[in-house]
Amino acid sequence: MGGAVGLTARRRGAATRIVGVGDRSETIEQARRMGAVDDATVDLREGVRDADLVVLAVPVRLIPDAARSVLAACRPQTIVTDLGSSKAGVVAAVEALIAQTKAQAFFVGSHPIAGSEKSGIESAGEVRLEGAACVLTPTPATDNESYRTVDEFWKALGMKTHRLSPEDHDAMLARSSHLPHLLSYALIHAQSGRSLQLAGPGLRDMTRLSGSDVRLWVDIMQQNAGELARVMKEFAAEMQHLAQEVEMLAMAGTPGAESARERLFRYLADAKQRHDEQFAAAPAPSEEPKDENLRSKDTQVVPPPPGG
Amino acid sequence: MGGAVGLTARRRGAATRIVGVGDRSETIEQARRMGAVDDATVDLREGVRDADLVVLAVPVRLIPDAARSVLAACRPQTIVTDLGSSKAGVVAAVEALIAQTKAQAFFVGSHPIAGSEKSGIESAGEVRLEGAACVLTPTPATDNESYRTVDEFWKALGMKTHRLSPEDHDAMLARSSHLPHLLSYALIHAQSGRSLQLAGPGLRDMTRLSGSDVRLWVDIMQQNAGELARVMKEFAAEMQHLAQEVEMLAMAGTPGAESARERLFRYLADAKQRHDEQFAAAPAPSEEPKDENLRSKDTQVVPPPPGG
Repeated sequence: MGGAVGLTARRRGAATRIVGVGDRSETIEQARRMGAVDDATVDLREGVRDADLVVLAVPVRLIPDAARSVLAACRPQTIVTDLGSSKAGVVAAVEALIAQTKAQAFFVGSHPIAGSEKSGIESAGEVRLEGAACVLTPTPATDNESYRTVDEFWKALGMKTHRLSPEDHDAMLARSSHLPHLLSYALIHAQSGRSLQLAGPGLRDMTRLSGSDVRLWVDIMQQNAGELARVMKEFAAEMQHLAQEVEMLAMAGTPGAESARERLFRYLADAKQRHDEQFAAAPAPSEEPKDENLRSKDTQVVPPPPGG
Repeated sequence: MGGAVGLTARRRGAATRIVGVGDRSETIEQARRMGAVDDATVDLREGVRDADLVVLAVPVRLIPDAARSVLAACRPQTIVTDLGSSKAGVVAAVEALIAQTKAQAFFVGSHPIAGSEKSGIESAGEVRLEGAACVLTPTPATDNESYRTVDEFWKALGMKTHRLSPEDHDAMLARSSHLPHLLSYALIHAQSGRSLQLAGPGLRDMTRLSGSDVRLWVDIMQQNAGELARVMKEFAAEMQHLAQEVEMLAMAGTPGAESARERLFRYLADAKQRHDEQFAAAPAPSEEPKDENLRSKDTQVVPPPPGG
């Protein structure tokens, strides 16, 4: 994702200079070759020294450590953001760090909702940020001007920004991302050897997410475990209920089967309608960000992505 | 799907003449324009009169009726197959029909596991049959020579054929197709307005199947209701169990959380491994059909698809 941010920012001229920071020289070499950075270094201190905005492009479990290193190395007034898929824990940790260390930098949590099941700089070109949503998760401690800067950065990358509290973000993402990931893994476990071998395009799409990085996803699930468990229980109960409806369907010709069929038809039709409204139609004008901060601003100098 | 069969058969020269039968003149006109048929008609009797092989390309609920019409119109020794996603009910119904009417035609159940959430002739070009699996579902009543003919037809379309009893097919498809469809619809219902609006590519892929034709899918679920309900209950119990594991994860720092994390890691890693073996690797030679009937045979004259 860090590579995708660099690529998109360079292509769209969203920053005057982009410096990549990686922990392995091969990673930063590849970032350079791909055109994801103007310059790159394995020296975090050097990489963030002149930055106006630092994007922490590391897995969620490493964000607090990465933030600690950046806060110690960057100049005052530097704005730091991240790409973490769970927010409440991350934002609290980084804000606590800033308070403890009395750092003069600012932090604004971000979550660009894009990405793929693949990770690593190799797949940076496959991630499409333009047109995708990006959630910013300010808290009462967030500096307003920094919020606007980060918001404008994501908009400059062509993203639609949304403002949610870290807790609302996590509750939402439990439904829209963490639950689907878990379903995808569980759906693989539900297959026999043969049913997996004979998979059609439906099963392939439904299990794509199970190709994701395992450690990254255990971390995300752990960070959002409370919300995720709640949503999973809801979903399990729904499946249990639907199984009973389907069981009634089997009693063909009975009034019970007929009314179960009508309820199931309605259930599927409602889902299809919501699906088609969201995905099949052209994006409605109302999907444009309703954010008040639309004024354009000077292009930011943006050095990241630390950690490769 | 009928359109896709016609398109692929013509492109690959799998039949000397393909006649499409549709119930609306617009459908057959479009099939002709797309090059999915050599000729097309709304007159079923005319369409199947000279056929060696008839492919019933209609929704599962209409297969018995379509078979009845075809059996009354085709000459003796005509081979009839279908594309139905559930098989036990369909195959039993058509075999009973042949026995009752003392028809001289042969029936072999087929299920090409391809297709998309879209239906209608418009989307025929989007269905990729080449390389996909096709399950044939013979019974003790199936004529061997007809089985081989149908098997060779699907192979001539580039498909990998598999032989399963109708009941084994349905048990397998409950896992690999009908459960994923239901999960897809249920996942839409699990979304709030906002979580759906902010959907990323993961949720989009996981809910693609909920854009499928509702009536078609209620029918398929009803036809396979017994197996599907069983698999759904299993899945619901698994989700309930996983929810408890995730709940333990939330108690960070406790030994319970640590061991839950290890179990979840193993669960995700096992799924990822199976996923990657199936979908990420190049097709292994062992995926080639192990069918004994590989000898080539004269190209068949193949008039379908009835019903558009």
